[in-house]
Amino acid sequence: MSLLDGVRVANAGIELFATELEAQGGSVTRVDWRPPVPGSEAALARLATASTAEANERATARMQAAHPRLGGIGIARELIEDLEPGTFLHAGPPIEWPDMAGPLRGAIIGAALLENLADDPEDAAKKAAAGEFRFVPCHERGAVGPMAGVVSPSMPVWIVDNEPGGNRAFCTLNEGLGKVLRYGAYDAGVIERLRWMSAVLAPVLTSALEILAEPLDLRAMIAHALQMGDELHNRNRAATSLLLRTLLPALLQVDHPRSDVVDATQFISSNDHFFLNLAMASAKATADAAAGTRGSSVVVCMARNGTDFGLRLSGTGDRWFTGPAGIVDGLYLPGFGPEDASPDIGDSTITETCGLGGMAMAAAPAIVRFVGGTPSDAIATTNRMYEITWDESDHYQVPALDLRGTPLGIDCREVVHTGILPAVNTGIAHKDPGVGQVGAGLVDPPMAAFLKATEALATA
Amino acid sequence: MSLLDGVRVANAGIELFATELEAQGGSVTRVDWRPPVPGSEAALARLATASTAEANERATARMQAAHPRLGGIGIARELIEDLEPGTFLHAGPPIEWPDMAGPLRGAIIGAALLENLADDPEDAAKKAAAGEFRFVPCHERGAVGPMAGVVSPSMPVWIVDNEPGGNRAFCTLNEGLGKVLRYGAYDAGVIERLRWMSAVLAPVLTSALEILAEPLDLRAMIAHALQMGDELHNRNRAATSLLLRTLLPALLQVDHPRSDVVDATQFISSNDHFFLNLAMASAKATADAAAGTRGSSVVVCMARNGTDFGLRLSGTGDRWFTGPAGIVDGLYLPGFGPEDASPDIGDSTITETCGLGGMAMAAAPAIVRFVGGTPSDAIATTNRMYEITWDESDHYQVPALDLRGTPLGIDCREVVHTGILPAVNTGIAHKDPGVGQVGAGLVDPPMAAFLKATEALATA
Repeated sequence: MSLLDGVRVANAGIELFATELEAQGGSVTRVDWRPPVPGSEAALARLATASTAEANERATARMQAAHPRLGGIGIARELIEDLEPGTFLHAGPPIEWPDMAGPLRGAIIGAALLENLADDPEDAAKKAAAGEFRFVPCHERGAVGPMAGVVSPSMPVWIVDNEPGGNRAFCTLNEGLGKVLRYGAYDAGVIERLRWMSAVLAPVLTSALEILAEPLDLRAMIAHALQMGDELHNRNRAATSLLLRTLLPALLQVDHPRSDVVDATQFISSNDHFFLNLAMASAKATADAAAGTRGSSVVVCMARNGTDFGLRLSGTGDRWFTGPAGIVDGLYLPGFGPEDASPDIGDSTITETCGLGGMAMAAAPAIVRFVGGTPSDAIATTNRMYEITWDESDHYQVPALDLRGTPLGIDCREVVHTGILPAVNTGIAHKDPGVGQVGAGLVDPPMAAFLKATEALATA
Repeated sequence: MSLLDGVRVANAGIELFATELEAQGGSVTRVDWRPPVPGSEAALARLATASTAEANERATARMQAAHPRLGGIGIARELIEDLEPGTFLHAGPPIEWPDMAGPLRGAIIGAALLENLADDPEDAAKKAAAGEFRFVPCHERGAVGPMAGVVSPSMPVWIVDNEPGGNRAFCTLNEGLGKVLRYGAYDAGVIERLRWMSAVLAPVLTSALEILAEPLDLRAMIAHALQMGDELHNRNRAATSLLLRTLLPALLQVDHPRSDVVDATQFISSNDHFFLNLAMASAKATADAAAGTRGSSVVVCMARNGTDFGLRLSGTGDRWFTGPAGIVDGLYLPGFGPEDASPDIGDSTITETCGLGGMAMAAAPAIVRFVGGTPSDAIATTNRMYEITWDESDHYQVPALDLRGTPLGIDCREVVHTGILPAVNTGIAHKDPGVGQVGAGLVDPPMAAFLKATEALATA
């Protein structure tokens, strides 16, 4: 008999202890633990109260109650407050032209051309540099946008309603792969595609949606897609297929030229990411429902503009807490490498904010082919996320975790306390405008942003 | 220190040893093992040769090389040899009217009405009992059919080609849920739907397939669906969605009345099982490619007629080895229970024969809601199947098993040797004709059939 027989040890952090104990015959369970971020102790102590817990309970209850449904498609300028010609929404926290990364600048140039506000790319860049345009985060106007996330007045946007919360969210329509505005491309083909999306795609889809008996239940569609290998950020194949399948009978009945319907349908069918923008708007409508809960440490927004990462807490109103955008660790398309990568960019981390995307990696084992790792890593990732979330989704479940609910409601305190950062998977944009996607991978949000937010909430 | 420190024990079978060893501090890995089926030792010894191994290698290589593609849709009588009026193909091994279960009788009655060979159900049953009809297993004519599996001359059938093997397989089109012929229903609505499938559905689909640039790659579609939570027997939601998505642009262009196209599309879209019959024909084309390999103990057919289960081996030609069809252990629809169930029926076990269905349960964790158990059980089931299969698929992978290939090529010797039966999940038909599906669950094939087959191969 070993002296350690019958003794069970939970080892937190330092591996040396565990190895030594096992060598002596002890049974050791390893627990992922790191000490709190230095300097955070006072703030964490101040927030370790019943009132924070109660506020988090209320905030996550509003996320649980959210029921995103597709309200239709509209034109950005008619729906989004204060979106005049010359104003451009963009991904991430506030930023001005001199600090913008290549892909964001490229997308602004393209959108200025689309809006006929510049004669050519050089003219657009000159006007932007001269302060002739105004830049506003999507998140400050109830919207989200993938990658550069640029929204200009003439663009069609999805309208996603959360009736239980009385709020709605907007997102542009996905442009497909290759050279696209959201990755900073702005050549003639990009602008032409955007005009076609306004003139053909959006009207065809609008007509199809009007034929449906009731608004599309996006929450149900996302729940199904999670059972079908999507995590709704970098994998939307199932959701896109379900969307098309649902729209199909209506698409067959719309009163548009047949060639337009065929083109619109082929455009959607050829792009497995088409649903992403609906997943993002659904997540935005869900997260916004939880915003403004006094005292809550739940994260309701995470977004990157290619230069900074920014987050907002439920309990700190409209304030942004920022840190430098990370470099994505992932797999590159042939001919590209880390030296080509723009830092992390896009509002698509709204999916992670609601427990999808990287947080729900375990639901999408096939995605590891694109972001590196193995399906077992994906399961470990999601399991780790329960350490930093307040709740588990009542609606979204992970098959590989015996149908456990997705981790819901990132608790900023726990991020700082455990040192575990939210898992984010994302596309990688080329650092220069006009090139496009060069890869996909995983990225760590900056701990500094979570620390600042925790301190601000503690002193609020 | 325990005397057993450093000793690692693999415990096969009897739990008492393992518990005792662990109590003494030993490290024990449990291995699922049962003694060979009594009486099988001599046959197993005779088949434990290099030539059996070599034959199995050749048989599974043909399954690996199989590449099922959709060749189109045709009329059964024009494609299937010797299918004259009054001849009916059916699921499972050979059987005559007096021994047929309720659902099979019901389907024969319905098909006789469809073919205008009887005035009413009583007349059809009378003629069947009088020996006026001829009954032939689907499997003996290159076809497969779900549940009752009845194919009559006028029915449209999918044509699935395996070009590498130079063979093809046929299967009817899926009728949807509720009261349907394959569950033995034969009322006016059932017959009317079958006539509509011949007159509208099949022609619309044929036109759509002709517009596609190339034959649908069913192997690729099945591989994708396995990444999306289907196991292609009782869950075909992803595959059906992918099929519709692929056909959609073509459906928009076919030259048929718009209302027919809308009806056909809605018919497919409303039935998550629509792809099942394509999965079955793909599996039949794959399994048939491996048939007739002299000396091989690989199973190339498992099928049930509601009374008997039958299998065929690659190395024993057209011989059937049978045992009684099992009662399905599963979940029942409200108002039904085991006392209502017909014994196991259908050719859909051709999916399991090729490593899909119950063999690939780990790919479809959501299915456990319909057949009982947990996602962990599903993973354990597939893991167990590697004990009785010769190979792992090069094309079909299971995300939850770190993308391991599906178990491929059931080795009849190993079934008898280990006592592990192939895992089968299936629908449950009501025992009376005309009622329909009453549940779904898991069923054990009879060991007797595997024992007979092993003995026959050993003395061949």
